[in-house]
Amino acid sequence: MSHPISKQAPISARALEIEPFRVMDILAQARALEAQGRDIVHMEIGEPDFPTPAPIIAAGIAALKAGYTHYTPALGLPQLREAIAAFYATRYGVTISPSRVVVTPGSSGALLLTLAVLLNPGDEVLLTDPGYPCNRHFARIIEGRAVAMPVTAATQYQPTAEMIAAHWSARTRAAMVATPSNPTGTLLTLDQLRPIHQAVSSRGGALVVDEIYHGLTYGRPAETALALGDDVFVINSFSKYFGMTGWRLGWLIAPEAYVDAVDRLAQNIFLAASTPAQHAALAAFHPDTLAILEARREAFQLRRDFLLPALRALGFDMPITPEGAFYLYAGCERFGLDAEQLTQVLLNQAGVAITPGADFGRFESSSHVRFAYTTTQDRMEQGVERLATFLKT
Amino acid sequence: MSHPISKQAPISARALEIEPFRVMDILAQARALEAQGRDIVHMEIGEPDFPTPAPIIAAGIAALKAGYTHYTPALGLPQLREAIAAFYATRYGVTISPSRVVVTPGSSGALLLTLAVLLNPGDEVLLTDPGYPCNRHFARIIEGRAVAMPVTAATQYQPTAEMIAAHWSARTRAAMVATPSNPTGTLLTLDQLRPIHQAVSSRGGALVVDEIYHGLTYGRPAETALALGDDVFVINSFSKYFGMTGWRLGWLIAPEAYVDAVDRLAQNIFLAASTPAQHAALAAFHPDTLAILEARREAFQLRRDFLLPALRALGFDMPITPEGAFYLYAGCERFGLDAEQLTQVLLNQAGVAITPGADFGRFESSSHVRFAYTTTQDRMEQGVERLATFLKT
Repeated sequence: MSHPISKQAPISARALEIEPFRVMDILAQARALEAQGRDIVHMEIGEPDFPTPAPIIAAGIAALKAGYTHYTPALGLPQLREAIAAFYATRYGVTISPSRVVVTPGSSGALLLTLAVLLNPGDEVLLTDPGYPCNRHFARIIEGRAVAMPVTAATQYQPTAEMIAAHWSARTRAAMVATPSNPTGTLLTLDQLRPIHQAVSSRGGALVVDEIYHGLTYGRPAETALALGDDVFVINSFSKYFGMTGWRLGWLIAPEAYVDAVDRLAQNIFLAASTPAQHAALAAFHPDTLAILEARREAFQLRRDFLLPALRALGFDMPITPEGAFYLYAGCERFGLDAEQLTQVLLNQAGVAITPGADFGRFESSSHVRFAYTTTQDRMEQGVERLATFLKT
Repeated sequence: MSHPISKQAPISARALEIEPFRVMDILAQARALEAQGRDIVHMEIGEPDFPTPAPIIAAGIAALKAGYTHYTPALGLPQLREAIAAFYATRYGVTISPSRVVVTPGSSGALLLTLAVLLNPGDEVLLTDPGYPCNRHFARIIEGRAVAMPVTAATQYQPTAEMIAAHWSARTRAAMVATPSNPTGTLLTLDQLRPIHQAVSSRGGALVVDEIYHGLTYGRPAETALALGDDVFVINSFSKYFGMTGWRLGWLIAPEAYVDAVDRLAQNIFLAASTPAQHAALAAFHPDTLAILEARREAFQLRRDFLLPALRALGFDMPITPEGAFYLYAGCERFGLDAEQLTQVLLNQAGVAITPGADFGRFESSSHVRFAYTTTQDRMEQGVERLATFLKT
C-alpha cells in the first residue's frame, strides 16, 4: 500500500485480517486491460448480465414519482412483507406469517443480522468450504468464528448430518448451508436438509439456509427449508433471480421468537432498507415479471448446457452436474498451474476472466476455479475458443 | 414478548442488550392512535417532512430508465466520489482526494465501517451523552465499548479537550463528536474542534466527526473537520440536508491509509450502496437542487425561530439556542413527571408526539425530551396550543 497506517494509529485486527474479494481484483485488472484496448470475456462476475425486469423498473419509477422517499419501518414496508409471505404460499405451498419476514439491505444485511443475533464472541458457525466468501467475514466482523466443513463432489459439495456432528463443538451455535450453492451450484433436497436440520437442532443450534439463488434451478425446482419447521432462518434476495443486484434488497425469514431482536438490531444498524427499492420490489411477484424471469431461467439453463460440456472437453474436472445458480466450479489440476496462476495467465494471455478458488475457502482451493455463466452465449463461445487455443498450446 | 426464545436456542448477548429506538415505539403508538381516529402532531420523527428534491428524483428516474441497476464498486460510483470531493472544495474550500471518499448505505454504513476498522473487542470509543443513540450500538455490535462523556448546556452539549483527557483510558482508540449534534442541535467551530483533535491524536487515537446535519445550520455555516488535517474520519449523509432519507445513502471521508481496509470490509458486508440512489445523488450538488435546499434551510430556521420561544414560554428549559439540525433538546423537570411519563401523557392526552431523553443516553435523560421541527408551521402551532392547554391544567 502506498499509504501505510502509522504505527501508533488505531486499526482493528479484523480490518487487517478480512480478505478482499479476489473476484474484485480480477475485475479491476480486466477493466484496466480493457482500458488499454484489450477484449476480455467476463466469466468472473457473480451478477447476471440481464437488467432489472421492466415491470420492476416501472414500479420503481412510479414510486419515485409518487414521492415514496421517506424511511420505512426497520422490518420493511408492510405490503412487501405480506407479498413475500404470499410468495412462499404460491410458489412453495408453505405458510409463513408476514411478521416473520424482515426486509433487508441486500441479503448481506440479512446475513449480518442473523449472525449478530446468534453469535457471541468466540461462538462458532459451521460453513462449507468452498462456500460464499463473505459468510466467514460476517462472522469475523462480530467476533464470531467461522468453522469450515470441507466438502467435495462426493456429497455434491454439500454438508451432511455426519459432517455437522463431526465439526460441532461446545462453542458451535449455528450451521449455515446454501442451496443452490455459490460457487458449486448444487442443491440440497428437503430429504437431504432434514437430517442436517435434525443434527443442528438436536444440539441446540440454529440452522441458517441461504436460498439466494432460488428460482435459478435447472431440472427440478428448489425446495425451501422453511418446510422443515419454524425454527429455521432462511435468507433470500431480490438480486439474483429477480435481477435487482444494484438495488440492494433482500430478506430474512426469522423464527418468530427472534424477530424482536432482529428489529432492534436493524433499527440501529440500518434504519431500514431502501424505500424506492422496496416499492419497486412489489412488482417482482407480478405474473408479467415472473414470465420474464422464467425466460431468463431458461436462458441460464441453455448457457449451463453449453458451458459445462465445453469446459469438460477442455480438461476441466467437473464430476457432477450443477443444478442451480450460474456457476461452474471446476478442477484445474491437469493444467499444471495453481488456480491463482492459471487465473492470471488466462486473464492476461487468453483474455478470459474467471475467479480462483481461493475466493471460496482454503480446501483444495488452489486446484479449483469458478466460471460464472453471466454473459451471453456469443461471448461464452468466444471465451471457450480462447481457452481452447491457449490451453492446448 | 409473545414468542419467547426457548432456553436452549442460541441468542447473542448483544441481541438481548441492544435497545430499541424509543422514538420508533412512540411513532408506532402514534400511528395506532391515528388508526383509531385521533389526530397526532408529530414532533418525534428525525426525518424532514420535505420530499426528495425534484432534480434528484428526476436523476433517479433517468438512471432507472437507463438501466443503471447493476452493482457499483464497493467504494462507490467513481463520478459520485469525485462529485463529493468537489463539493468540499466549493462549499468549504477544503481539498479532498476522491480516493478518500467512500460511498455508503446511509451514514449508518459509514458509522459501522469506521468503528469496525478502529475497534477491537473491548476497545473504547468516547461519545457524548446525550448523543445519537445508534452510535453506542454500532460499537456494541462489533464488541467495542462506548464510553459516555456527559455534556451539559455549559459547553453547548459538546465535549471539550479536557473531557477527552478525563475519559481517555488505555483501551480508548477513538472519540466521536457530532456537529450539528442530535439531539441538541449545537455546533462545534473549527476553533473548538482543534483542541479536541489535538487531545485525541496526541493520545494515538482517531477522531470521528459526524457531519450528518451539515447544511442545516441557522446563523453561521458549519465548518468541516476535514480542515483540521487528513487523519480525521468525517461522516456525512444524503439523508437530512439533501432530503434523501429513504434512499439510504451516505458517505465517509477516511484517512488515505484506511481506505484499503474500509474497501475490504465494505466489499464483504455491503457489496456496495444502492446504484439508483448513487446515480440520483449525482444531481444533489446541482445549483437547482442547492437552491431548493437553501429554501428548505430557511424554512427550518423559521420553524426553529417559532418553536424555541414557544416552548420556553411553556416552561421547557432551554438555556442555549441550537444553531443546527432540526431538534430542540428541552429540560422538562418543572412539569413534575419524568421524561418517559411526560412523553406518554403528551401523546395519549394532548395528541403530541415527542421523544423521551432516554433515546439519547442516560445522563439527565429522565428530565429531558427532544422536539423535532420536522413538520409544518401550522401543525407545530397546533402542537404548541395542545401543549399549552394540557400543561397549564
